[in-house]
Amino acid sequence: MSKVLVIGAGGVGSVAVHKMAMNSDIFSHITLASRRVAKCDAIAESVKARTGVVIDTAQVDADDVEATAALIARVKPALVVNLALPYQDLAIMDACLKTGVNYLDTANYEPRDEAKFEYSWQWAYQERFKAAGLMALLGSGFDPGVTSVFASYLKKHHLDRIDTLDILDCNGGDHGQHFATNFNPEINIREVTAPARHYENGQWVESPPLSTKQVFDFEQVGAKNMYLMYHEELESLAKHYPEIKRIRFWMTFGDAYLKHLEVLQNVGMTRIDPVMHEGREIIPLQFLKAVLPEPASLGVTTKGKTNIGDIATGEKNGKPKTVYVYQICDHEEAYAETGNQAVSYTTGVPAMIGAALVLTGAWKGEGVFNMEQFDPDPFMDMLNTHGLPWQVKELDGPLGF
Amino acid sequence: MSKVLVIGAGGVGSVAVHKMAMNSDIFSHITLASRRVAKCDAIAESVKARTGVVIDTAQVDADDVEATAALIARVKPALVVNLALPYQDLAIMDACLKTGVNYLDTANYEPRDEAKFEYSWQWAYQERFKAAGLMALLGSGFDPGVTSVFASYLKKHHLDRIDTLDILDCNGGDHGQHFATNFNPEINIREVTAPARHYENGQWVESPPLSTKQVFDFEQVGAKNMYLMYHEELESLAKHYPEIKRIRFWMTFGDAYLKHLEVLQNVGMTRIDPVMHEGREIIPLQFLKAVLPEPASLGVTTKGKTNIGDIATGEKNGKPKTVYVYQICDHEEAYAETGNQAVSYTTGVPAMIGAALVLTGAWKGEGVFNMEQFDPDPFMDMLNTHGLPWQVKELDGPLGF
Repeated sequence: MSKVLVIGAGGVGSVAVHKMAMNSDIFSHITLASRRVAKCDAIAESVKARTGVVIDTAQVDADDVEATAALIARVKPALVVNLALPYQDLAIMDACLKTGVNYLDTANYEPRDEAKFEYSWQWAYQERFKAAGLMALLGSGFDPGVTSVFASYLKKHHLDRIDTLDILDCNGGDHGQHFATNFNPEINIREVTAPARHYENGQWVESPPLSTKQVFDFEQVGAKNMYLMYHEELESLAKHYPEIKRIRFWMTFGDAYLKHLEVLQNVGMTRIDPVMHEGREIIPLQFLKAVLPEPASLGVTTKGKTNIGDIATGEKNGKPKTVYVYQICDHEEAYAETGNQAVSYTTGVPAMIGAALVLTGAWKGEGVFNMEQFDPDPFMDMLNTHGLPWQVKELDGPLGF
Repeated sequence: MSKVLVIGAGGVGSVAVHKMAMNSDIFSHITLASRRVAKCDAIAESVKARTGVVIDTAQVDADDVEATAALIARVKPALVVNLALPYQDLAIMDACLKTGVNYLDTANYEPRDEAKFEYSWQWAYQERFKAAGLMALLGSGFDPGVTSVFASYLKKHHLDRIDTLDILDCNGGDHGQHFATNFNPEINIREVTAPARHYENGQWVESPPLSTKQVFDFEQVGAKNMYLMYHEELESLAKHYPEIKRIRFWMTFGDAYLKHLEVLQNVGMTRIDPVMHEGREIIPLQFLKAVLPEPASLGVTTKGKTNIGDIATGEKNGKPKTVYVYQICDHEEAYAETGNQAVSYTTGVPAMIGAALVLTGAWKGEGVFNMEQFDPDPFMDMLNTHGLPWQVKELDGPLGF
């Protein structure tokens, strides 16, 4: 029986808290905190209506280490689950160190003023967490998170040696809007407009944004264009599995999405440097967020499925083998269960599972950890029983290129 | 020998003041005023360098009737030439009435919070200007302005009766940017995204924005898609030439321009109602203006030509006849002469010509006037001798539809 403090009341926070409430044997007491307490209260009401569980809510500015530490000291959780903005990871880690509490998040730290995705800032906390006898579990969402656990699962059960690993992220959902992003538009657009990067023979290979694509036929979604991208789990997988020759990440985008993105880039609306307007500095990408639909508002209209998985090639018993492990999630079913669509659902459920494994001690350690460093089996089991069932199949061969 | 006060230091103001300085026999003394006096000073320097004429500059907020009236009282011009924003027309007309000075502009008044283009607000000043013995000349740019004079010219010299009138506005210039507007983006986008409207058999017919197009082969530019639009001269031409059965306005747009515009509309960036951002109301279209290139900055890179004209069908000596009068302007030549590209040049030169005709008394009257109400001949002559030579040709028949 353990107390948890969840920071962040967006779609992912909402899903995580709903799923924690459904597992009150593990999560004995839940506090949800965010900059705007009204958002927490709305989620708390939904949790009560759907599960009968009463959770606490609190206001906190997660940029403010002292305020966050004071909240932690008052709530006394066994674990802080950070589902706030990636900009706030370090401040929340600092607050955990200050108060002696374990930490979990779903996305790595990035600075506000630079689209730079790397673990260096958080890995630099390794010695401090170790010295404090605390555990920080990084990236316990779907990607990163489940995709990393999929890799360690394939390595443990299906292949003696992994030669190549491709992560395929397909959102086949249709939200009925001209243009919208499935999660925080600012974070989403920063990620998509960054150069592509993959790991090959011990080196990082960079290519222009969205310049490499191939078609893949996703089960229950259909054939989609998917584009080579950088994604943060590539860095930790390359670190922990240096023997893999090539690791890549692919994401699907529709032509209309790319057209909108191209125009918004062309006119400068995706810039993250400030522009003067009426005597004040305004970041175009942040203003764009103000005119785009709130991702949370899309749940009610989104139809279709997500299909995210890993394809590994390698050798088993001396023979070449290609294995695919993937998870299909239905937007409408996800919405029916927690009031959030599949993109939030597929991130929030793994956050709950990671938190459960830390709280129960199934996963434990001192220091800063990525998902692929632990035994995948208890995580894979909980995916099956908590709403994200997965499938494995052997493929005839690797991806087209 | 007459004093003139020009308000507005954008591209059009710059061209008008340069051309006035080149005609110092008519414009004996020029004062250029604007909200930002530094812009006036930069234009004054260019005028001095190019023509040797020294002009005065002044700061004024044209929304402020008292301040504008005080400036007029100090400068004592015979005419105020308003080349500021269309939102400011009424305030400047009020200041002219207060001080007993004639008025000229190039674009009709529109309210800030509504994309509504009509002369009603300015025509309502008719009695006041008349009673004061003053003249207000509305719309002395290219379109409206030259296009209206073209109509009265065709009526006076080429046709006994006009049955249909089509105004064709083609900008074949290439500014080398992904997306930019050739004049104030806010005004331009409000105009383009408004429903199309044309005059037919005594009635106004409305159709969705950009829904009607045809290809026209513009001399020295080539074949371009042109789209049916509403444009303000339609209203005054329909009033003064009620016998014309159909009056339409067409403007060319490239596919890339339309794609960008579609996306910007889809995401809400062309909205003129405020959006909350960081605790303040911001108008998306005004913020968009802050990220788009300054139209004035495009002059140096713009190549190609504009071609704007009127096609009238009707009867001459009992026989059907179609006549086309048009003007071709080269962006690079315009830039070489005044430091502004052709879109500013084709508006600024007619502003100077209209001002010259008022100051010399070639055009005179008491009240509020549109361009087609005066004898076209002196205006047409000055176009030929001041940088905007035009051509007339007879066509085999009317437009495709």
